[in-house]
Amino acid sequence: MICDPGNSRTIWWGEGLWLIDQTKLPSEYKPIKIENIKSLIEAIKSMRIRGAPALGAAGAYGVALAAQLSRASNVEDLLFEVGVAAEMIKASEPTAVNLSWGTDRVMRVAESQDNIEDIRGSSLAEAERIAEEDITINKALGRSGAKLLENGDHILTHCNAGRLACVGWGTALGVVRSAVEAGKEIHVYACETRPLNQGSRLTAWELSQDGIPVTLICENASGSLMRKGIIDKAIVGADRITRDAVFSKVGTYNHAIVAKYHKVPFYMAAPLSTFDLQHSSEDIEVEERSPEELQSLGGCRLAPEGVKICNPAFDVMPLELVSALITEKGVFRPPLMPPV
Amino acid sequence: MICDPGNSRTIWWGEGLWLIDQTKLPSEYKPIKIENIKSLIEAIKSMRIRGAPALGAAGAYGVALAAQLSRASNVEDLLFEVGVAAEMIKASEPTAVNLSWGTDRVMRVAESQDNIEDIRGSSLAEAERIAEEDITINKALGRSGAKLLENGDHILTHCNAGRLACVGWGTALGVVRSAVEAGKEIHVYACETRPLNQGSRLTAWELSQDGIPVTLICENASGSLMRKGIIDKAIVGADRITRDAVFSKVGTYNHAIVAKYHKVPFYMAAPLSTFDLQHSSEDIEVEERSPEELQSLGGCRLAPEGVKICNPAFDVMPLELVSALITEKGVFRPPLMPPV
Repeated sequence: MICDPGNSRTIWWGEGLWLIDQTKLPSEYKPIKIENIKSLIEAIKSMRIRGAPALGAAGAYGVALAAQLSRASNVEDLLFEVGVAAEMIKASEPTAVNLSWGTDRVMRVAESQDNIEDIRGSSLAEAERIAEEDITINKALGRSGAKLLENGDHILTHCNAGRLACVGWGTALGVVRSAVEAGKEIHVYACETRPLNQGSRLTAWELSQDGIPVTLICENASGSLMRKGIIDKAIVGADRITRDAVFSKVGTYNHAIVAKYHKVPFYMAAPLSTFDLQHSSEDIEVEERSPEELQSLGGCRLAPEGVKICNPAFDVMPLELVSALITEKGVFRPPLMPPV
Repeated sequence: MICDPGNSRTIWWGEGLWLIDQTKLPSEYKPIKIENIKSLIEAIKSMRIRGAPALGAAGAYGVALAAQLSRASNVEDLLFEVGVAAEMIKASEPTAVNLSWGTDRVMRVAESQDNIEDIRGSSLAEAERIAEEDITINKALGRSGAKLLENGDHILTHCNAGRLACVGWGTALGVVRSAVEAGKEIHVYACETRPLNQGSRLTAWELSQDGIPVTLICENASGSLMRKGIIDKAIVGADRITRDAVFSKVGTYNHAIVAKYHKVPFYMAAPLSTFDLQHSSEDIEVEERSPEELQSLGGCRLAPEGVKICNPAFDVMPLELVSALITEKGVFRPPLMPPV
């Protein structure tokens, strides 16, 4: 079905795999059907779907899709094919740990089956379960985080850790939604988030859709607003939390340092699927994205031809800058970590 | 003349007032003739010419232009007309103090004359003197700042405090040029500087033109690069330095805090015309620029229609974050200030 159930999901199954093409927002709200694994990988790489929790569901549905599409005639061949697809999906965005988490979780279920029909059925069922859980988890996370927000708070956020970054509800913006649901008035300051402008394109859009007051700023202005005392708290999402560090959208680290300087609490909202406490930050590579992203925009050339560009996708920041981690199991103050 | 003398000036007089239209860069290097005061004001407001020292020259030439264009038949009428033009020019960008400084300096010379020809002649001569001095001053400033840079340094800069921000040579980038002239190898990391991308459009362009190694980044990545130990020093320009604060392009404050956190020296390069020690920051209003600048780019819509946008043009930052002020009279460590 072209419309997702409830019209608020980022990714869903309806006679095939569907997702909202987030590169088209805010101009167009466009569901696209993912016909094969190659298209799914393209969608992840070009960020038609993005956001750590949404990538968890994308990986999960990807395994289910691979199982449905395969023409293998025996279990061994099918699991081999699906396993190759799973590895390709995981490699399409190596930093967000949720992608591997969702992919592996469905893969394990598929591997525990002993006939083709059961592999297909149970992998889709597990993917659907992950998608359902995502919303349940985000609502629980939202409720625990909402206690940190007071009526009238002005919240800074970076990138999009909203329902568009998840299957639904959102992590950082889920906390805002839960606070609003609990009757608090919250005003969000969304940083535009260069170079892909997830703040202007997605966060400003989804909050406007929900009638939650939002003001768009350049990330350049976050310090200026904090100095004026306009920002009460900052809440952002995370892409991976290792023993020693948080991986998050480039720019998050700058805001965290600026928040610390102004004694503004800096919260990170992340479901347990984002935690990767077996690893330390040294083990994880941060991808560098295409220089094109800074070179031009909408056909308008921004930088001279041939200029060298450095475009890291993520920050790796020390946990000491995080005032609290908001999870579905409650709020943890580093170095305290949730039981994962 | 369409080409400026030496082909490296941002603003010059040649049978009329000419300037490089900086909104056209990096796609096109386009000199435009300023036919009247209204066009000059439009050029300042739309940032065809920008940068504190260049605005000093623009104000100076503006008074000279007003004197040439006036059809007043007596000294009193001429000075009244020119005085009105001067006030209008000064109001077109109230934060950069150099604009008032240049305008007032030529106005004082005009007012000391007692016939129409002398008012015209001496105001143009004074404007030319200010433009010449700008280059001399920037070279002196560059030489004093260059001593702070070591061979092999990687320098972060924000916005454009280069020759395009001045009549020539540059302030922050003038320091880099002087260090390069002295035989040092310097690599500049230019922040793109949202929302108007002076870093990508102007800094990356002018350094590339001069063959000085430059890498373009999102300002979002400044913390990440400092954490990796890639940035040795930061040098930026300033728009006004009062007794207690520095006014500079929005985002400068964030970089300064991030630099302090990483113990990276943070230098400000500013000619004495930028100092306004009679005032404190409370006396100065910071302009808010058009929301359009965050709304779309090159015909590409970035933010949903109707979303609220906050777009301050400048940061007001405490002097304690500045490791040293680089001027044409030498290097000063705050709270030490140069004799102005």
